[in-house]
Amino acid sequence: RGYTQLRLNSIVSGDAEAPAGVSRLRTIGDGEVRADNNFSFRRVRLVLQGDVSDYLSLYLQADMATAVSNQSAGERREGFAQLRDAYADVFPTRDKSFRVRFGQSKIPYGWENMQSSSNRLALDRSDGINTGAPSERDIGIVAYYTPDHVQDIWDRLGKDGQKLFGNYGAFGLGAFNGQGTNRTETNDNVMIVGLATWPFELDALGLEGQVFELGGSFYRNRVNPEIRTGGVSPIDYKDNRIGVHAILYPQPFGLQAEWNWGTGPEFDPVSRQIEERPINGGYIQAMARVRQSPLGPFHPFARWQYYRGGFKGAINAPRLETEELEFGLEFLPTPALELTVTYGFASRKEADERRFGQAEGELLRIQAQWNY
Amino acid sequence: RGYTQLRLNSIVSGDAEAPAGVSRLRTIGDGEVRADNNFSFRRVRLVLQGDVSDYLSLYLQADMATAVSNQSAGERREGFAQLRDAYADVFPTRDKSFRVRFGQSKIPYGWENMQSSSNRLALDRSDGINTGAPSERDIGIVAYYTPDHVQDIWDRLGKDGQKLFGNYGAFGLGAFNGQGTNRTETNDNVMIVGLATWPFELDALGLEGQVFELGGSFYRNRVNPEIRTGGVSPIDYKDNRIGVHAILYPQPFGLQAEWNWGTGPEFDPVSRQIEERPINGGYIQAMARVRQSPLGPFHPFARWQYYRGGFKGAINAPRLETEELEFGLEFLPTPALELTVTYGFASRKEADERRFGQAEGELLRIQAQWNY
Amino acid sequence: RGYTQLRLNSIVSGDAEAPAGVSRLRTIGDGEVRADNNFSFRRVRLVLQGDVSDYLSLYLQADMATAVSNQSAGERREGFAQLRDAYADVFPTRDKSFRVRFGQSKIPYGWENMQSSSNRLALDRSDGINTGAPSERDIGIVAYYTPDHVQDIWDRLGKDGQKLFGNYGAFGLGAFNGQGTNRTETNDNVMIVGLATWPFELDALGLEGQVFELGGSFYRNRVNPEIRTGGVSPIDYKDNRIGVHAILYPQPFGLQAEWNWGTGPEFDPVSRQIEERPINGGYIQAMARVRQSPLGPFHPFARWQYYRGGFKGAINAPRLETEELEFGLEFLPTPALELTVTYGFASRKEADERRFGQAEGELLRIQAQWNY
Repeated sequence: RGYTQLRLNSIVSGDAEAPAGVSRLRTIGDGEVRADNNFSFRRVRLVLQGDVSDYLSLYLQADMATAVSNQSAGERREGFAQLRDAYADVFPTRDKSFRVRFGQSKIPYGWENMQSSSNRLALDRSDGINTGAPSERDIGIVAYYTPDHVQDIWDRLGKDGQKLFGNYGAFGLGAFNGQGTNRTETNDNVMIVGLATWPFELDALGLEGQVFELGGSFYRNRVNPEIRTGGVSPIDYKDNRIGVHAILYPQPFGLQAEWNWGTGPEFDPVSRQIEERPINGGYIQAMARVRQSPLGPFHPFARWQYYRGGFKGAINAPRLETEELEFGLEFLPTPALELTVTYGFASRKEADERRFGQAEGELLRIQAQWNY
Repeated sequence: RGYTQLRLNSIVSGDAEAPAGVSRLRTIGDGEVRADNNFSFRRVRLVLQGDVSDYLSLYLQADMATAVSNQSAGERREGFAQLRDAYADVFPTRDKSFRVRFGQSKIPYGWENMQSSSNRLALDRSDGINTGAPSERDIGIVAYYTPDHVQDIWDRLGKDGQKLFGNYGAFGLGAFNGQGTNRTETNDNVMIVGLATWPFELDALGLEGQVFELGGSFYRNRVNPEIRTGGVSPIDYKDNRIGVHAILYPQPFGLQAEWNWGTGPEFDPVSRQIEERPINGGYIQAMARVRQSPLGPFHPFARWQYYRGGFKGAINAPRLETEELEFGLEFLPTPALELTVTYGFASRKEADERRFGQAEGELLRIQAQWNY
Repeated sequence: RGYTQLRLNSIVSGDAEAPAGVSRLRTIGDGEVRADNNFSFRRVRLVLQGDVSDYLSLYLQADMATAVSNQSAGERREGFAQLRDAYADVFPTRDKSFRVRFGQSKIPYGWENMQSSSNRLALDRSDGINTGAPSERDIGIVAYYTPDHVQDIWDRLGKDGQKLFGNYGAFGLGAFNGQGTNRTETNDNVMIVGLATWPFELDALGLEGQVFELGGSFYRNRVNPEIRTGGVSPIDYKDNRIGVHAILYPQPFGLQAEWNWGTGPEFDPVSRQIEERPINGGYIQAMARVRQSPLGPFHPFARWQYYRGGFKGAINAPRLETEELEFGLEFLPTPALELTVTYGFASRKEADERRFGQAEGELLRIQAQWNY
């Protein structure tokens, strides 16, 4: 099992390049949004999973599109295999509604973070939500609980072809290293994360079959960002967030929104050091679902996102200032192949503490995704 | 599926070592042709493939014998997994004779480049042809068309155990990034590549069952070679080639030849910078096929190769001056195991712009390949 | 097939940190025995194997928990896939008792080295035995022979759930590169390795079903350790060892001991260069097997280990001075899940030629292992 995403990103107009010290139009979600690029793989995923017994099931996911830096002449090489998930689910009561997950898995923070990229309409996650958990995963222990009633609603939506958030629980509570995906833990602190989400059936309001999902999540963490002079900061900074989410599943019109607030490390260009600063960001997305057309089912969507705060995943935790409006269309000519086209209007500060100001521009992006 | 190649290379006599500034006997096809080596893996390949529907089939290949540089004390470590192929074949007309291939796959330039290394008699590809597409692959889109009549001839040869060039088409036309396998694209230009090959049945000439295949290929590209001071050259150089190939399949005697000409980047030691220079090279191979022996079927072969031109895949695109004559024997004691022994007489300039002159020597090489 | 080991190491008391020049409490078996750590993967293994014919079988194992150094800001990244084994077993006589193994596989030195980490009771191998073959593997050719009578005894023990040393032979003799797992060979010398082990049934002594296994192994090698200034030493040092082992399988009480002696490279802090010095070390382990309990079968064990000598696997071959006493319990609630808890009292010199003196401390370690 798995999926591959082949992309063609093009900066149609705007600040594709800029002199030193000035932001260029870049995103934290896809390093191939840049000048001088053509085709690129965003993800080449392979999944192995299985039920070992009624009490134990296993999951292993690797990505084959990871670049390794500092190879020939300091240049990077692409296409290396790197772990994404490796966890064991233990069902202590044999009942599948409660599970304890050991190993590397997604941290339960942010609905969009939990949803698989193979299911998401937009090409990249929003800066506001994803900066809380870059690459979404960490090593730790997490417990999930899903009441049967909730599972039934999700099963019904899933069978209908709705884009759900995956094999996670309605309630999750976990402890993780907190330093980030595939990074070496650098402090004795653990990250405490919790999520709750609940789908409401709106039949009682006369909206036959419609489902509205509401929830929130939080984490408490301390993080040591990497620093420009090499290695990680010896100081661990406060990194706490709380967020809310709401989804009206598209039957045929839907809405999806998330927002979060908190405190995190951010480089201050005046004091020239990392400080603890407030964080504020999220997105609103409108989408529709056309079940039949000569080209197969398709989903039009529009998303506006906003973020102000640091990005702990980059060197020196640079400040981001993101506003972006994207319009997109996802086609499914066959279930195994998805084609997405988006056109976006972006105003972004580059994720580099040595570059300032907003880069503005328009982006055309095309993605072919094949599922296997 | 996949295969592994275990090798023992030995420089029997000649310039195994040399002082700084003088060429040592090295090849661009196998980094383990050097002094002080014993056993080495050249390839450890794993393939996953499958047909998703009548309109879609997928292919994923990784190599487990890739070295990663700059690890402990600046030393490299071996055995990492890196992507080779990841593509989706779309058959828009459901007819398998026409396909559009999306993703990372071989660029259709050079018959020898297209042929799988598991099928090739010689241990390494020739410098003349392979310098056009080092590691043979790139990300892009390519269309292949194979008339049924041609497919029938290849199917017949394949059933007979002939070493064909693989699941490619008689006609191919594609657009790729053009910077090289698993390298980051560095210019907005795409590489345009085309190949045509046609098998002629010689029954009409009274040569029952004999097949002669003739064809050619070309590409137009611009490339930014890596430079000694770090990173890639800011200048993109012209990198254009045209080539021809001819194969008489061994029943029991065969001939195979390719040659190509073009222009590409080459380091000029006088001006001390990379310039656009002519390229000229190819090979001629004679081979036979003994279907039965006490040791199983075997193939004796002899290959002479020649190349004059730059090598865009190495730092600073150094000039190569290669002449090599190899004699070899490939045994197949069981279909899953192939043993190859070659003895070669080489005169080569090392692929390093800081070393000059021709290194001469004799090479004994042994390979065990297991297929799975 | 494969297994994953998730660990939580904690330095309960002692020298978790130390000023420059003084040893900290670290082990060569697990880099995550350190301050400031929480959860970690020690191994994420995946195995592919199969019989191709009566004469040929294949084995491929990769690890998904390998770190790659020198990535962002000089920091390492974890979770990369790297080869462990890739070999072909040829049975020339079709009889499975004799095999020739080609490729990367374990070198037959040390009973504990041969035993899979998924079977070992203690979390890490002992310094004394494992320093002879860090990561246990190398590329080469090795022949194994197992008399049918011996195979029968091992099969009986294996069915009984005893922790055997794996699919190796009673007698092994091989030639390998000798530079270490996934390292580039640096001298023309090969490593010659041999092992013999023989299980004796003690029924004649009135000990019904008890088995006592006795054996020894040796190797002759020359190795070029990595040096602090970059690259490997131009000098190849003598690296020879001989060892003995004895195992009384736990029915229900068992004993296991190994010891080895030899000569190897070791950094001399006075002359400030690597010299050839004597090596001496091993371990004694007592263990029991409780077949039934409310928590499933479990194994209590205690191990004392000792080592004095250089460590060729680290930069500049630093001297180790290790004494450690560990107590542990391994639970098997289901066959696919193993939980191990150990508590250890350690006195160790850190594996860094720039740090001196003994670090002392107590270690609590917890491991969850899932097999698939």
